[in-house]
Amino acid sequence: MSTAVSPLAPTNVPELPPIAGVRLATGAAGIKYKDRTDVLLALFDEGTTAAGVFTRSKCPSAPVEWCRAQVKRGRARALVVNSGNANAFTGKNGRDAVNFTARLAAKAADCKAQDVFLASTGVIGEPLPAERFDGVMESMARMAQAGRFMEAARAIMTTDTFPKVATARVKIGKTTVTINGIAKGAGMIAPDMATMLSYVFTDAAIAAPVLRLLLAESVADTFNAVTVDGDTSTSDTLMIFATGKAKGVPSIVRSSDPRLKNFRKGLHAVLASLAEQVARDGEGARKLFEVVVEGAKTKQSARRIAMSIANSPLVKTAIAGEDANWGRVVMAVGKAGEPADRDKLSIWFGGIRVAHKGARDPNYDEAAVSETMKKPEIKLRVALGLGKGWDRVLTCDLTKEYVAINGDYRS
Amino acid sequence: MSTAVSPLAPTNVPELPPIAGVRLATGAAGIKYKDRTDVLLALFDEGTTAAGVFTRSKCPSAPVEWCRAQVKRGRARALVVNSGNANAFTGKNGRDAVNFTARLAAKAADCKAQDVFLASTGVIGEPLPAERFDGVMESMARMAQAGRFMEAARAIMTTDTFPKVATARVKIGKTTVTINGIAKGAGMIAPDMATMLSYVFTDAAIAAPVLRLLLAESVADTFNAVTVDGDTSTSDTLMIFATGKAKGVPSIVRSSDPRLKNFRKGLHAVLASLAEQVARDGEGARKLFEVVVEGAKTKQSARRIAMSIANSPLVKTAIAGEDANWGRVVMAVGKAGEPADRDKLSIWFGGIRVAHKGARDPNYDEAAVSETMKKPEIKLRVALGLGKGWDRVLTCDLTKEYVAINGDYRS
Repeated sequence: MSTAVSPLAPTNVPELPPIAGVRLATGAAGIKYKDRTDVLLALFDEGTTAAGVFTRSKCPSAPVEWCRAQVKRGRARALVVNSGNANAFTGKNGRDAVNFTARLAAKAADCKAQDVFLASTGVIGEPLPAERFDGVMESMARMAQAGRFMEAARAIMTTDTFPKVATARVKIGKTTVTINGIAKGAGMIAPDMATMLSYVFTDAAIAAPVLRLLLAESVADTFNAVTVDGDTSTSDTLMIFATGKAKGVPSIVRSSDPRLKNFRKGLHAVLASLAEQVARDGEGARKLFEVVVEGAKTKQSARRIAMSIANSPLVKTAIAGEDANWGRVVMAVGKAGEPADRDKLSIWFGGIRVAHKGARDPNYDEAAVSETMKKPEIKLRVALGLGKGWDRVLTCDLTKEYVAINGDYRS
Repeated sequence: MSTAVSPLAPTNVPELPPIAGVRLATGAAGIKYKDRTDVLLALFDEGTTAAGVFTRSKCPSAPVEWCRAQVKRGRARALVVNSGNANAFTGKNGRDAVNFTARLAAKAADCKAQDVFLASTGVIGEPLPAERFDGVMESMARMAQAGRFMEAARAIMTTDTFPKVATARVKIGKTTVTINGIAKGAGMIAPDMATMLSYVFTDAAIAAPVLRLLLAESVADTFNAVTVDGDTSTSDTLMIFATGKAKGVPSIVRSSDPRLKNFRKGLHAVLASLAEQVARDGEGARKLFEVVVEGAKTKQSARRIAMSIANSPLVKTAIAGEDANWGRVVMAVGKAGEPADRDKLSIWFGGIRVAHKGARDPNYDEAAVSETMKKPEIKLRVALGLGKGWDRVLTCDLTKEYVAINGDYRS
């Protein structure tokens, strides 16, 4: 496992202010790791609404199934996240562990088990020793306090090399509310060690169906537009909790409410920042790679082509090798199965056009391209010349370090 | 680039007998490589029928477009294949190079340009210096002779570490015919250096539409069931040429002709052998990895799940790491988007069941699994328990060497 912090880690890490109605505590249950925290307990005041989006995997983890069932009620009082074990593909044992943990947290938080949300990330297929939570849950509930978002982000890390946090302050009516987010993930998945989890907390008062819609609106171009290796976790989870405890904040019950305008922007910014941080912490990543596709027939078509490029091992190894290999980009466009015309394709690396209308651009400056490929952030732009479909996807390069993290972990 | 021969190379290489009506020559045109052959010229007697299947890429190379147009006529007199340059994404220059080469070969072979088939493999986006063929084409035509299939297989290699050949002898009526095949490919693609090309030659007499059908029947479970990195070449080509020159061979004009029974089997065996050799020579491969999916809803569903597993970077790195990581297999099943029920899944590595009905198999012998994972050939079996859909896909592991071949090539 990699220990050094990713060279792409953000240099400015924001302070996350406390959020009224949210108390956090972290603990060391010794699930797998030694000498570090591995459980997060979040407690929410009564009246907190909740919404979530979960992995599209057909083989979701036991906690994902639990959350899907409970979130329909739209209420939350507690959240328990552990790292070190994913409680995925653990059969009846997994469901038992979920029930046990939910009851344990409910007792500690003095709420119903159905109001407890859960997530587990780490090794999959190993039984989760949920009894180890027994020793820490009560004391965590007692010690939970406002703030502590950075500690929370740390407790849920697996192969992450840095904790991921983001924050925004926006107005709803005349009241300023806070939106804090934390995330973990160093691959869309590495089920032995990673997965993508993200939690957003706000003191706004927003009805659960509206929260659900806001998440759906924003996730498509943030978390769903990030890929590390094209592998989808059995545990991916994004949830939002709204306490409604900002003083004097109006209660929003319709997604068409114009007072949501700034909240929408703030939420999008928080999710976009967290999603970018996941790409920046991609396993073995040395380059942040942004793929922009324009001129596709539709946005969906642009997304598929961008993902085909962003997931291509040959494109990703070329980026690692600092080579503006537009030939491999053409290959990835071609294999996407979407409308494309070779002789209309143009390709830019870092703003320099390297290919134009079906052939190498005769005028491009090799030295300038070579310089741009050495940067830690590489931007690729592909123009298809067919329509107005546009999309953007973030990923990272594919390095020997990725293979080492995911292949050498037993040694 | 890798120079050592793949540890997975076949140990028994068959002798390929001459085929009446086929003459081969190889030459060194100096397209890119030094001190090796890089052009193959095959000459076919009059009356030779031909069929082909080509890449599904939406951005095919200029030679692929040429072949698609000419093969409709079903006749062939010559084949020119060069390595070192793919003549892909080369615009008008590429089409000019194709026309020039076809005319050059037609003159040397004394036939029409439309009866000449072409392929190029190597760097993409660089203009093909087709004029260099001018110096070698006439002398190759003069020197072409029966046999020489191994030299032919060598001349078309790029990142391949060994030449790929296969042969079969089968009866059509009372006549024994020969089927010889050659192939190159060390990734489904690495457009800078690789692609998949395969040519099959026979002295059977089979009408072009029947050849086309026979190829289509066999390619689905041979070449189309092999993946190295999930990246599809702009140049992939599989062609078959039938000279009809076996003495007394009956002419087959219908695919329902019962005399084709053994030919079908022989052709399938040749294609299956060549396809397996491509997987065995996967860039950086240290393990041949066979993925069998059974109990899917349909065969197509089984294929999609098998490909999702075979293309998953996390599964492939686990194979490289000799870890029977069935958790990652579950992940790859889940992300395929096909019907699957976590709690019905069973998974075997090398015949040892490691997971059963949604959880780790409590009885499996870790030492035995560990031994099986050390072998150069790893067989994975996944039973979904939903239906009768079955499929099999061949691939290889993902190693640091793959990243080195495709990322470090500039250094």
